Amino acid sequence: MYKARINITLRSSILDPQGKAAHNALTHLGFENIDQVRIGKYIEMGIDAESVETAETVAREACRKLLANPVMEDFDIQIVSTEG
Amino acid sequence: MYKARINITLRSSILDPQGKAAHNALTHLGFENIDQVRIGKYIEMGIDAESVETAETVAREACRKLLANPVMEDFDIQIVSTEG
Repeated sequence: MYKARINITLRSSILDPQGKAAHNALTHLGFENIDQVRIGKYIEMGIDAESVETAETVAREACRKLLANPVMEDFDIQIVSTEG
Repeated sequence: MYKARINITLRSSILDPQGKAAHNALTHLGFENIDQVRIGKYIEMGIDAESVETAETVAREACRKLLANPVMEDFDIQIVSTEG
């Protein structure tokens, strides 16, 4: 049994209005030294697979087919074992 | 200059309808070996600070004051240097 941790981010060429709004709010709260705020998705899932490689393939397919928008988003997958 | 990578997750005691919907959709697509899908937020930001510790304090304050809901969400902060 493995756990996949997936970070999905908007490509840097795509405007991120949600990140911009968070940056504005942070500035108004006095966080002057924060910039380049980008907001994406974080997905965790359990994967029943025989090996790390198989689990990563399953997670990658899930991102390609459903979870990420391949035109606008990039994704980064980390697989951890949940045994023992 | 540092970059903060922040994962914000719903506490495990809180129902996650978005994750449940993604899990259902994945099952319909044939991903039978995936379970426990939880969806949270991933935030990246640049922080101008003198040390890793200061950058982490700034990121933690930003989560506490704005980015995360302390009642329903947990957050995990990773600081990386962007110098050099």
